[in-house]
Amino acid sequence: MLQSQFTVTHQDGQARCGELTLRHGVVHTPVFMPVGTQGSVKSLAPDDLDTLGAEIILANTYHLYLRLGEARIRDLGGLHSFMQWNKNILTDSGGFQVFSLGAGSRQQKPLLEKMTEEGAHFRSHIDGSRHLLTPERSIAMQEAIGADVMMVFDECPPPYAEKNDQLASLQRTTRWAERCVQARTHAGGALFGIVQGGLSLELRAQHTEMLKQFSFDGLAIGGLAVGESKEEFMRTLSFTAAQLPTERPRYLMGVGTPADLVEAVNVGIDMFDCVMPTRNARNGTLFVSTGKLTIKNATYMNDLRPIDENCACYTCRTFSRAYLRHLFVAEEILFHRLATLHNLTYYLNLMSKMRQAIAHQCFQEFRADFLRYQETNFSGELAI
Amino acid sequence: MLQSQFTVTHQDGQARCGELTLRHGVVHTPVFMPVGTQGSVKSLAPDDLDTLGAEIILANTYHLYLRLGEARIRDLGGLHSFMQWNKNILTDSGGFQVFSLGAGSRQQKPLLEKMTEEGAHFRSHIDGSRHLLTPERSIAMQEAIGADVMMVFDECPPPYAEKNDQLASLQRTTRWAERCVQARTHAGGALFGIVQGGLSLELRAQHTEMLKQFSFDGLAIGGLAVGESKEEFMRTLSFTAAQLPTERPRYLMGVGTPADLVEAVNVGIDMFDCVMPTRNARNGTLFVSTGKLTIKNATYMNDLRPIDENCACYTCRTFSRAYLRHLFVAEEILFHRLATLHNLTYYLNLMSKMRQAIAHQCFQEFRADFLRYQETNFSGELAI
Repeated sequence: MLQSQFTVTHQDGQARCGELTLRHGVVHTPVFMPVGTQGSVKSLAPDDLDTLGAEIILANTYHLYLRLGEARIRDLGGLHSFMQWNKNILTDSGGFQVFSLGAGSRQQKPLLEKMTEEGAHFRSHIDGSRHLLTPERSIAMQEAIGADVMMVFDECPPPYAEKNDQLASLQRTTRWAERCVQARTHAGGALFGIVQGGLSLELRAQHTEMLKQFSFDGLAIGGLAVGESKEEFMRTLSFTAAQLPTERPRYLMGVGTPADLVEAVNVGIDMFDCVMPTRNARNGTLFVSTGKLTIKNATYMNDLRPIDENCACYTCRTFSRAYLRHLFVAEEILFHRLATLHNLTYYLNLMSKMRQAIAHQCFQEFRADFLRYQETNFSGELAI
Repeated sequence: MLQSQFTVTHQDGQARCGELTLRHGVVHTPVFMPVGTQGSVKSLAPDDLDTLGAEIILANTYHLYLRLGEARIRDLGGLHSFMQWNKNILTDSGGFQVFSLGAGSRQQKPLLEKMTEEGAHFRSHIDGSRHLLTPERSIAMQEAIGADVMMVFDECPPPYAEKNDQLASLQRTTRWAERCVQARTHAGGALFGIVQGGLSLELRAQHTEMLKQFSFDGLAIGGLAVGESKEEFMRTLSFTAAQLPTERPRYLMGVGTPADLVEAVNVGIDMFDCVMPTRNARNGTLFVSTGKLTIKNATYMNDLRPIDENCACYTCRTFSRAYLRHLFVAEEILFHRLATLHNLTYYLNLMSKMRQAIAHQCFQEFRADFLRYQETNFSGELAI
């Protein structure tokens, strides 16, 4: 029971362009999905997202479940109507928030109390109330939201867990995937599976095989970019991507830097989401064609140039670095929107350039040029 | 040396419509000026202000002096270019912030150390640094900003000071007004005097006479709405307004509620500024044609109506009360912009309706209808 269509339109090496047709229109891949955790891409209104050319955004089931609940979001007509966004929405399952927002995170943390075969028992980060999230409840909530793409409710074990523990976790996650498949209704959107397995190539291959028994609309790679080295990340990513079916979209969850996106597209990934462009914007780190720019630096005090002379976003067409620095230093809230508009323009333009390079069979030249810039200009100190 | 033209186009009782021609275009009065304290009307970009139909905004000399300083704002090309606002800007003199941000204010407070004939010695609320603000420095700063209307640097004594102290203060304020007149250059904008005198009609009349010796582009009424009763406010306002020259614009500083604006227009006031619509917006108090609405109330949880069915702003055209309440409760920063757009639309529409009523000689009917609504629906508990 597929609720989507996917066509690969161009291929260049492992990199590919595709058209993913969902209930709210076509998504051109490779695609980056801006994150709208609580039904709002922070600081932006839907007309801003239209101006950016976004075709799909991500919303978080965990936050919407606690803030609104299943019955209310259904009564309110679903998230599209609620937030007045008429293009596609992908929802995560809530699993990542419940299991994995661990030490060191600056996010508000839920408190995982107990994990059973039934699901995850946790306390709300908002009011301490007790909740049980199960595969069935996650799917019901995602259907109430009206998600165009739903994700299976899965466990995300720490990448360095014992292999036996990881295998047990994969088996449970597979049973939960099956419960999600059983729970979905004809009214729901597309459903993606999530391949786990930490940094073990063997487990990644095993789990991919387990998930192939279900006819998912797409497969995601979960549990990466959670603290492993760049080498471990790339080794696991490229191996796992190669295991995934070619005829379905491949989604790398929660990644990443601009260079990460280019490398992941290079091994055949089609979909991305990450809070980096939006969160960095609010922290004053702006992406530019020659690297990045920390707007609070005194060097920009009297700099009348735009953030990026090659950028056509409203912020760059209108304001100087000096003004944006002033807004940031004076803690003016207008800064958040202007910086977010710029950073998302950067990310969405990067995806557009990759799609063009793939269509013109020059992705390797694009990648080499891009990474040379990154090595020269990115210092790896990105404030995430 | 006038730097403005003012024509009264319609009169209905004491209420009047006018056209105030400044360096950045015509301002239609009665007018409300949104407050952009630090070179930004909080949460709004200049294209938002254009959409609202704003013809003039206010900026605060005190904040821009501390954040940028005179030399820097001049080097940056002035505030219009810096913030990319191409219509008019009125600046206050800095005096109100230095003298009057007293007990109970939620604003960041400067520390007034000493007041001498030369000017005000104070410490910055940002870094504790020492500064001396004089009439000459205030005018130089306002000219560096590129203000289309500058205000004289004045003392704002507490309304209940001893009469002798008040008279001494008025005399100093008059000497300072003269120093401001001497300090302005041909490059500067229009210059308004400020009538003080607390709640004494005698002092208000005396000070108005003192200020008439200077050829100001307009006269403002200062020192009202600082804690006095509504009766004292109206008595002082109507008396003082009647003393002011009819051929120049009259500006009531820092006022007020929608009902205050209607009553002040009724006694002949032409210009207003106030943080109420913008600050209330951020606090979740929204102005509607039938009164006000506190968006966090649970009653709006599932209310799919717009804030105000009679409002045509982007927020009301697009979003439900339920969504706006969700954004407010979830502390989503998009709320600030959507609420600010709405409240400023309310205020600017109110001014537009008053101008139309005056032009059609039906201002008293408008006023009676409006105040009846306010009595019925406003409880006076506005969260300011």
